[in-house]
Amino acid sequence: MNQPVTRSDPHPSQHEATNRRVLLAARPTGLPGDDCWRFEDVALAPLADGQVRVRNRLLSLDPAMRGWMNEQRSYIAPVGIGEVMRAGAVGEVVASRHPGFAVGTWVSGALGVQRVATVDPADRASGGLTAIDPALAPPEKWLNPLGMPGMTAYFGLLDVGRPEAGQTVVVSGAAGAVGQLVGQIARLHGCRVVGIAGGAAKCALARDVFGFDACVDYRAPDLKAALKAACPDGVDVYFDNVGGEILDLVLTRLRRRARVVLCGAISQYNTEGQVRGPANYLSLLVNRARMEGFVVFDYAARYPQAAAAMAGWMKAGQLTSREDIVDGLDRFPEALRMLFSGANVGKLVLRVD
Amino acid sequence: MNQPVTRSDPHPSQHEATNRRVLLAARPTGLPGDDCWRFEDVALAPLADGQVRVRNRLLSLDPAMRGWMNEQRSYIAPVGIGEVMRAGAVGEVVASRHPGFAVGTWVSGALGVQRVATVDPADRASGGLTAIDPALAPPEKWLNPLGMPGMTAYFGLLDVGRPEAGQTVVVSGAAGAVGQLVGQIARLHGCRVVGIAGGAAKCALARDVFGFDACVDYRAPDLKAALKAACPDGVDVYFDNVGGEILDLVLTRLRRRARVVLCGAISQYNTEGQVRGPANYLSLLVNRARMEGFVVFDYAARYPQAAAAMAGWMKAGQLTSREDIVDGLDRFPEALRMLFSGANVGKLVLRVD
Repeated sequence: MNQPVTRSDPHPSQHEATNRRVLLAARPTGLPGDDCWRFEDVALAPLADGQVRVRNRLLSLDPAMRGWMNEQRSYIAPVGIGEVMRAGAVGEVVASRHPGFAVGTWVSGALGVQRVATVDPADRASGGLTAIDPALAPPEKWLNPLGMPGMTAYFGLLDVGRPEAGQTVVVSGAAGAVGQLVGQIARLHGCRVVGIAGGAAKCALARDVFGFDACVDYRAPDLKAALKAACPDGVDVYFDNVGGEILDLVLTRLRRRARVVLCGAISQYNTEGQVRGPANYLSLLVNRARMEGFVVFDYAARYPQAAAAMAGWMKAGQLTSREDIVDGLDRFPEALRMLFSGANVGKLVLRVD
Repeated sequence: MNQPVTRSDPHPSQHEATNRRVLLAARPTGLPGDDCWRFEDVALAPLADGQVRVRNRLLSLDPAMRGWMNEQRSYIAPVGIGEVMRAGAVGEVVASRHPGFAVGTWVSGALGVQRVATVDPADRASGGLTAIDPALAPPEKWLNPLGMPGMTAYFGLLDVGRPEAGQTVVVSGAAGAVGQLVGQIARLHGCRVVGIAGGAAKCALARDVFGFDACVDYRAPDLKAALKAACPDGVDVYFDNVGGEILDLVLTRLRRRARVVLCGAISQYNTEGQVRGPANYLSLLVNRARMEGFVVFDYAARYPQAAAAMAGWMKAGQLTSREDIVDGLDRFPEALRMLFSGANVGKLVLRVD
């Protein structure tokens, strides 16, 4: 139907002949070792009608990836053994047989841990392909405030947490991709914002760069006292990225009608035994409080609205973000583990080249 | 101001000269033993202006009592050592220096574990005193469908659980005071109702007397399979009275946007170690579901509306209740323990005489 539109394009990357890709070789127990992955170089097949070829530039590394590696289905199907590992990415269209995506267009989508992705934007199961405007913000921002972390922070905080001006919002993983944005959006809504993060450097970042009113170091000797000091009136909204001991502790500080937003539980993702349930969950009863989960994909129809709000705040200098960029596709296994050791500061991104 | 209105009243109980009362003597660890209580006979003081004297007839025995015996404050202050144990009760006014309560009036209130209560209805801290109409329903019904269990079931299910016709509602403690009412109210709202109860007799009661569509015996060898069979499409509303293992199991069966109503956690109240947190709480995330606590006292302004609805259903033969009446104030310690062994069927009531 459409002629390939790549022939006359001078962009060198159109001439990719092979793809280097990272397949899930084995399901992990605990922290994913190098043996979970197989690197493979394969020749690229000619594009079929309707397909788009994308040269991935930046890959998003997310705690959720650990869940996708497990066998059981959660909110999304697991990655199969021998399949390319799922990842969000931004890249450039290097060849196209789809009228909506010209060569040279920057795009984002679930493009996978590989150098080149071949996708069919009409295939719903692929998660779609979205054109992005690198003039509005650099590509890495499209994996962070204007991408999934941004959407997650925006809808999780505002739609599920429903903070009101003057209330206290606590967020764990405060220096992480989602946490730093949650704190800033809460502050923009007139809330007192308290972060929880690991180590003095991350806490300083939350306070000094992201404008948190306070940030508590979860490695501090008396975390309970530190949290109490930071939230003298209790907690109205807790945005939980970590689960485990920290969730349990914050539950003891809830105010009446508090909302606990369940976004993730990174402390539990590599647990080989049973997940640690929040022993203090009856605080929800005593305080007439609510704990609620959400999945950002449900808000897809409203992403443009959220991205516009985020871009507006960025433009006005009211919202900033920090990305931590690791170089080289081959460092993917190591980079993924950084998420769970707390080694990254801000959104962890892998640069493919 | 007011003359005592007792003098000409012929009711013999007005002549009570002493009160027998049950004081909290020691805080329990685990199941409350006999040594937690002190029985005391004391002379009654003359009534002060504004006071009302009530001859308690029936005392309500509730799982919440166990929490009131602990030292830490929860949604209500603990009972102090040496204080009369708190209990809801119904009784008759036997003497009054309050214009709103004539001798012979039946009343309900937090009248305590004692034969005679002397209360000041104007004192908010006492929880108030409410006239009841024994012609509308016998006194024990005012401790059950028209009392706290009824209010708890009504507001917990309808306001927090928000069931919709055609949805599946699961309730634990299905043969208990609150559970039996939750199931019936849910059925009246067009829901499929599944109970969880201990033993074949209680399950039969839930099905045959209270009209549950199914009831699962939690002592069954494969509870998981039984629950799955009873809820083939999953669970939209879970009204939790028990916590522990059963809560964890139901969490694995939640449907999208399910509501878990936290009413109690009777399986955990006598735990000497830490409460068991729901290890499967991340099901709330995957299923975009909500777990929410409530305290019935918050709905006090709407009790009359709920009692009218309950009385209407009872009159129409659409709602029934079962009370399990134990005789004798002196059996209070033993009767309280029945709540935790599962020995009672229906609302446990202690007849004072």
